[in-house]
Amino acid sequence: MAASSQPTLIGLDWGTSSLRGYLLASDGGVIESVVKPWGIQHLPVGGFAGAFQDVVAAWRGRDQEAASLPVVAAGMVGSRQGWREVPYVDCPADAGAIARGLLAFDSEAGRIHLVPGVIQRGPLPNVLRGEETQIVGALAREPALAAESLVVLPGTHSKWVRVRDGQIIRFETFMTGELFAVLREHSLLGKPAREAGADAIGAGEKAAAFARGLAVARESGAEGVSGRLFTTRSLYLTGELPPAATLDYLSGLLVGEEMRSAIAAHRNQPLPAIVLIGDAALCGRYQEAVATFDVTPARVLGDSAAAGLWEVASAAGLVSAARDSSRSAPHG
Amino acid sequence: MAASSQPTLIGLDWGTSSLRGYLLASDGGVIESVVKPWGIQHLPVGGFAGAFQDVVAAWRGRDQEAASLPVVAAGMVGSRQGWREVPYVDCPADAGAIARGLLAFDSEAGRIHLVPGVIQRGPLPNVLRGEETQIVGALAREPALAAESLVVLPGTHSKWVRVRDGQIIRFETFMTGELFAVLREHSLLGKPAREAGADAIGAGEKAAAFARGLAVARESGAEGVSGRLFTTRSLYLTGELPPAATLDYLSGLLVGEEMRSAIAAHRNQPLPAIVLIGDAALCGRYQEAVATFDVTPARVLGDSAAAGLWEVASAAGLVSAARDSSRSAPHG
Repeated sequence: MAASSQPTLIGLDWGTSSLRGYLLASDGGVIESVVKPWGIQHLPVGGFAGAFQDVVAAWRGRDQEAASLPVVAAGMVGSRQGWREVPYVDCPADAGAIARGLLAFDSEAGRIHLVPGVIQRGPLPNVLRGEETQIVGALAREPALAAESLVVLPGTHSKWVRVRDGQIIRFETFMTGELFAVLREHSLLGKPAREAGADAIGAGEKAAAFARGLAVARESGAEGVSGRLFTTRSLYLTGELPPAATLDYLSGLLVGEEMRSAIAAHRNQPLPAIVLIGDAALCGRYQEAVATFDVTPARVLGDSAAAGLWEVASAAGLVSAARDSSRSAPHG
Repeated sequence: MAASSQPTLIGLDWGTSSLRGYLLASDGGVIESVVKPWGIQHLPVGGFAGAFQDVVAAWRGRDQEAASLPVVAAGMVGSRQGWREVPYVDCPADAGAIARGLLAFDSEAGRIHLVPGVIQRGPLPNVLRGEETQIVGALAREPALAAESLVVLPGTHSKWVRVRDGQIIRFETFMTGELFAVLREHSLLGKPAREAGADAIGAGEKAAAFARGLAVARESGAEGVSGRLFTTRSLYLTGELPPAATLDYLSGLLVGEEMRSAIAAHRNQPLPAIVLIGDAALCGRYQEAVATFDVTPARVLGDSAAAGLWEVASAAGLVSAARDSSRSAPHG
């Protein structure tokens, strides 16, 4: 086994809906990974410890050295609803500050280090948990982002994170994914598609409806989409939107509103290029949304949790650069 | 029985969640009224005909003349999910146009005239159904409103209706009530209050949280509240908002966003004074919201469905002014 593929760290990206485990090598590379549907609200028998045991045991049981591999976990596992609540670290925060906020404890299944979230204090406080690790990973993967960048993590709660000099300096939260889900499942707007089935039309028609929603959001200007959400209904009632396309249109309205509002928030300064992190299909939709507003370019970087877990562990001294002298510069 | 209290018309305000019946006199005054929980999605045994029979029969059975009283019904009873779908009349629309759009049919329980909704055509079509009758009633009650007014009907789907020269000339829909309900019941934002119980604190603290939400919406400027909804969560997490006050704050954010957006839509013209129609408690909250934004006065007119049903029936010739020469001028 080459030094660079020596198991060195177990990283867990443990969110609300899933648990992703990574066996990381001494250069931070991923040797193996596993995905379980064991988000903190969908735990298996045995709860947190049972899930931990299942994911970690196979890797730890391999040999003498692996038995003591440190485990670092990021995400909602460290929230009030998680295994243990880890106090937030204050914004601005970099990898070092996040590492200093690690909460270590000995569970019945073994020792674990939980990564803290980040809090932005003030009259309108804001928090993130899990995204800080993605950001740290993104900066490790692309050191050029550290100087000045705008990282967008679409999802249930989208985060728009400003990075400067390697620090998270400010962020905003848009509940776009959750809004879409509750409107789809529980509102009048979701009813036609719930009844028709969202797959009753072709991909082209769905894409056109999404683009139409984006355009309506862009054109809404300072009004925003609150007075236009109902067009999801009225365009269906007038026969201009087939029932199966209504949710794509609604998604366009909501993603477009996120974009519109975020751009309005930066109106006194040019927007840096946007880097998207997260699910590929969702990032693709956001990339289209950024293009519709045509104010800055956007590209997709992809999931950076494993790199972030490595970086935090490294900054905390849980893994040592000395262990493998071939470790690459971005991790330094 | 004085001529003015002679039963002349049965009016039904038949919406999604309730059925209100009015026995109207020859001067349009309400002789008796009844409220049943039989909205079109909560019908009793016997469905539409059963509900109709129950409300109408008691009044019709009184005497020979009452047996033939015409029945006019407004609201969602005329929608696609209603008893019969009544085609919308085009905006601009006045009482005459609405009366010409009445759909009469003979149900198994007797003849009924359904009031049409109003449609505003264009790239972003909009519809209302039920509110047109409230507006017609408001103009009958206060003829001074007919020249130029802005009537706001808060509710599940709030309507902002511009009236000029006795016509509905334009309107917007805000899904504020429905948004609040789905977020309260199904989102993360509603969770602390669902667990704490919304009555765990005093009215003063709840009012302060509502006012705080309004202020945040006002201060959001062109950004709007989409990036601030999450503060309902973060203010709870930081202990600045007790769990039982979170929904009042959220309500303030959402009502404030409606206000902010509606004001932004009128930015090139001064807002006329606002007249609020609907549930008294809800109108009170909207009155506070208008005051927070401080751009125009607002007053509460109250429910005008009965007056509107009378006006539409009168314009359709279902009730005759000749029947009672003492009928007052506003109804002419």
